[in-house]
Amino acid sequence: MLPTILDLTSLSEAYAAGKSPLDIIEIVIARRAASTDPAIFITPTPDDILRAEVRALMMRAPEPNSLPLWGIPFAVKDNIDVAGLPTTAACPAFSYRPEKDATVVARLRAAGAIVIGKTNLDQFATGLNGTRSPHGAPRSVFDKNYVSGGSSSGSAVAVASGLASFALGTDTAGSGRVPAAFNNLVGIKPTPGLVPNVGVVPACRSVDVVTVFAPTVGDGVAIRKVMEGFDAADPFSRKAVPASLPASGLRIGVLDGAEREFFGDKEVEALYDQAIERARGLGATIVPFDYAPFREAAALLYDGPWVAERLAAVETFLATNAADFDPTVRGIIEGAKGKTAVEAFNGRYRLEELRRKTEAEWEKADVLLLPTSPTTYTVEEMMADPIVKNGHFGRYTNFVNLLDCAAIAVPAGFDADGHLPAGITLVGSAFADDALAPFADAMHRTLNAGMGKDRLAAIPEASRVPQADDGLVPIVVVGAHLTGMPLNHELTRPGGRRIKSCRTAPDYRLFVLPDTVPPKPGLIREPGFDGKGLEVEVWKVPAEAFGRFVQNIPAPLGIGKVTLDDGSQIAGFLCEAHAIEGAREITELGGWRAYVTDQRIPK
Amino acid sequence: MLPTILDLTSLSEAYAAGKSPLDIIEIVIARRAASTDPAIFITPTPDDILRAEVRALMMRAPEPNSLPLWGIPFAVKDNIDVAGLPTTAACPAFSYRPEKDATVVARLRAAGAIVIGKTNLDQFATGLNGTRSPHGAPRSVFDKNYVSGGSSSGSAVAVASGLASFALGTDTAGSGRVPAAFNNLVGIKPTPGLVPNVGVVPACRSVDVVTVFAPTVGDGVAIRKVMEGFDAADPFSRKAVPASLPASGLRIGVLDGAEREFFGDKEVEALYDQAIERARGLGATIVPFDYAPFREAAALLYDGPWVAERLAAVETFLATNAADFDPTVRGIIEGAKGKTAVEAFNGRYRLEELRRKTEAEWEKADVLLLPTSPTTYTVEEMMADPIVKNGHFGRYTNFVNLLDCAAIAVPAGFDADGHLPAGITLVGSAFADDALAPFADAMHRTLNAGMGKDRLAAIPEASRVPQADDGLVPIVVVGAHLTGMPLNHELTRPGGRRIKSCRTAPDYRLFVLPDTVPPKPGLIREPGFDGKGLEVEVWKVPAEAFGRFVQNIPAPLGIGKVTLDDGSQIAGFLCEAHAIEGAREITELGGWRAYVTDQRIPK
Repeated sequence: MLPTILDLTSLSEAYAAGKSPLDIIEIVIARRAASTDPAIFITPTPDDILRAEVRALMMRAPEPNSLPLWGIPFAVKDNIDVAGLPTTAACPAFSYRPEKDATVVARLRAAGAIVIGKTNLDQFATGLNGTRSPHGAPRSVFDKNYVSGGSSSGSAVAVASGLASFALGTDTAGSGRVPAAFNNLVGIKPTPGLVPNVGVVPACRSVDVVTVFAPTVGDGVAIRKVMEGFDAADPFSRKAVPASLPASGLRIGVLDGAEREFFGDKEVEALYDQAIERARGLGATIVPFDYAPFREAAALLYDGPWVAERLAAVETFLATNAADFDPTVRGIIEGAKGKTAVEAFNGRYRLEELRRKTEAEWEKADVLLLPTSPTTYTVEEMMADPIVKNGHFGRYTNFVNLLDCAAIAVPAGFDADGHLPAGITLVGSAFADDALAPFADAMHRTLNAGMGKDRLAAIPEASRVPQADDGLVPIVVVGAHLTGMPLNHELTRPGGRRIKSCRTAPDYRLFVLPDTVPPKPGLIREPGFDGKGLEVEVWKVPAEAFGRFVQNIPAPLGIGKVTLDDGSQIAGFLCEAHAIEGAREITELGGWRAYVTDQRIPK
Repeated sequence: MLPTILDLTSLSEAYAAGKSPLDIIEIVIARRAASTDPAIFITPTPDDILRAEVRALMMRAPEPNSLPLWGIPFAVKDNIDVAGLPTTAACPAFSYRPEKDATVVARLRAAGAIVIGKTNLDQFATGLNGTRSPHGAPRSVFDKNYVSGGSSSGSAVAVASGLASFALGTDTAGSGRVPAAFNNLVGIKPTPGLVPNVGVVPACRSVDVVTVFAPTVGDGVAIRKVMEGFDAADPFSRKAVPASLPASGLRIGVLDGAEREFFGDKEVEALYDQAIERARGLGATIVPFDYAPFREAAALLYDGPWVAERLAAVETFLATNAADFDPTVRGIIEGAKGKTAVEAFNGRYRLEELRRKTEAEWEKADVLLLPTSPTTYTVEEMMADPIVKNGHFGRYTNFVNLLDCAAIAVPAGFDADGHLPAGITLVGSAFADDALAPFADAMHRTLNAGMGKDRLAAIPEASRVPQADDGLVPIVVVGAHLTGMPLNHELTRPGGRRIKSCRTAPDYRLFVLPDTVPPKPGLIREPGFDGKGLEVEVWKVPAEAFGRFVQNIPAPLGIGKVTLDDGSQIAGFLCEAHAIEGAREITELGGWRAYVTDQRIPK
């Protein structure tokens, strides 16, 4: 039996066990037909086309799981082009039929994924709530009175209700995160420019980002990796230089004092506090930070000049089709009409000033842990007060793209009576996308809240995000570089870390090199020699520092491979054989430290 | 006798020889009083204050040359704050008295430099010609009928006429480069954000840059290094990551076909072509590139929305003081009044599209070599047609800050009858400031055109800019990594370069290691052994690649220090002694290549 939530692990295991994508797609078709929310899709992929797509995939790549997303069904927000289906941006009069897939869709299809339909959204991606569409408001999968969140409303509901393994959203103010929170999903919000926007209807072109809704962080990251990478056709595409984060002991910034604003929602506040405790339980250091400059930057997105980007995106269409707009969306976009170029530049100056202030806060914390949305509302409440209540949702999301951050929204559990979920978002600096993921995944796994609407689903172990390569290389040190010895700073200064103390394999001998300052030993391997092994330390240092370190080692020493007592071979100090002629052997002391201690004892 | 041009070498040598800064400042005061150009300064530092400043320096740092710019006189463009002198931006009604030095001025003064006055400029730094000032037009030091170039007009003339060792300009469209060309000077135009703008009257805040006029590239770079570095008080200040350039064989992009535009000035065109030949003579590879996308980006600076930044900078003052503006400057700034925020964002989009196109051109060339200005004009010609003729000057300069480039303007010699000079500019990518300098300096030294108004002055050898550390580390290879051998790609793939082929010192022996794939030699040093040395190659590779390379070397090989036939010790392959027991010695063949060749010959 296929589980409710179609996570990548479940599907690839089903395929590995002999299930056909044709079977899976029939299940998706059946589920889609049986869906109780009529507002998820604007254009579902017709059944026959879906079947044909799957057959084409099986012709192209017959071997199960032979592509990264082989036979994985996904939904696409209807402001992203899929060749053969109209793009409407939830404005029927705006509809056009793209000839080409958006770059992200093309990459996902090339990787074997199958588009099951185009999903509903707040018109022109203007909103965070999901009610601003002529196609109706998708609902939270947990209570149909409540908003789904937006603007990527249909995408989130499609995944949370088991119609798709993942779905694409777009995110300018928080549209790829807020709906994740309201539907117990993960929302992967890449750094602006990491994922190309070619074939995406712009909201604010300079800060729009394509996102992924997925059941797990591991799934979402795997999907993002298929989508990401420079595309010269997108002027805002960037060549990423991944940022790193400490592998352990993350400093997690949390809201403090007056900046803790939940608009009276004690349930979400309690879940936020629980998330902080879960982070602490994972070994993180919790540090309060000042959210004020982030909040002020967030306010610029709608109150500042950036709303003119929304007008720039639809200006021609608006001139002829004003009546075709959702009234709220139109009101927001037309609000940009009076704005001047001077205001645009003044807004940029203000943002740069605030960026400077936020940099001081980033000195305190490696990652920010924020509520995704501080509260939620019913569809009725939202529609009664659509600007103010929508603004509440963006309290902790609006700054993220303006300030060039990466973010991952993860579930934070359900309110006390198990009714509605909330979410938290981990925010990192530009291109910390991969670096954020292991902690985000670990946070998700400390929760026992299922995935999407299936509250009992276990997060598959196979989707665990491993700690990233830390860019460090190992080195075995024997003498003056040991902890506490005179050259140890050559390891610590460039950021090296001691991994362990241990012994070499038995066939090494140790000598005191004559005339070295500071005194240094020479380690020589002699196959067949059966000693007790010699005391060494294993360190890890950045590769570049290691390179320079090796350059600075004087003859007769060098770096080769040292075999340890566990049989592993690690780069470490060796000595040219000619240098030990006549040198004193200290093998029997067991190591350099014992020799140095011995020297200090008056005889 | 003090030379006409007060370059840093001449002054520091004078100080080392016992000359006092008090003597030098008297010479500066006398020269300033005798200057035949009445338009250089807006506010000269009063004589008594100058003397007091020098005395204060000598109290603070009595030892000659004990600070980087000890007793060096400099001039400051009058849109940069100097505490105690008014800042006017060449608009008397705008004048204010700053309480603090601009960051750059504070840093220069802390380094021992002495401000001799505030210099004239095109009002609000709006212009490239130097005639838009109520204080008159400074003139080219070579012909008083000709413009000095602007907007940093007075600063360039002050240095070129020997009143100051260097001067500060600002550069938005080319104001730190065009006046250098017209006055036989070097203009150092840093990457935007490298040098802080705190205390500088904005022109276009997002692209303004403080520049240096100096007699030599070496002087200019030394001064820029004093000024540069992050300042949190400037929202556009950036933490630079220096870009590198190949240490030799630079690919120099030059104008081609229809993009060669000199507005009929055959003299400047000829000097440009000579500069190309001089670059070739320095070993550069000359590559034509397409200037069109750069030209289109250049046009955005005045025709696009960026002029609104000029309006944003003076909007309040303009509202009350329109009559106090230079009419041309006012016309330009008021041109921004109708521009909308939508136009501002559309301009940004256009710039990003053009940036993408220029990236394709940067694939062809490491550095662009452009005319600084394609022609020059008399003051009379300029004032008769101030917008169009000013635009000619910016043909090859306007794009540079918009596209986030570093640039160094250097003299290009005099026209055929030795009347007027022209200049060329070397443009590099963001933060290539240091990387550009050695080639710019070498280009300057291939010219025999003096410095500033002194056409006979020799460029001091002490100001030569050494080739920068290229971030590469050397390695000696002996066997499978030699050119053409199976593992050579481990050096070439990460960007390694062969430096030379040579031999080791005589006391090395070479063995064929048994059971290695591909076959590898073992190099062993045996002090006292007197062979002929063994054939090796010296390569240079990036430090990080070297680090990873060392990590991947299997036992019994390692990296130590190899002594070459010239006595130098360089990191290279060594072998653990135990591994050569019973191995075949091939020392007599002279190297691994001879052994491999030998093996291929049927016996």
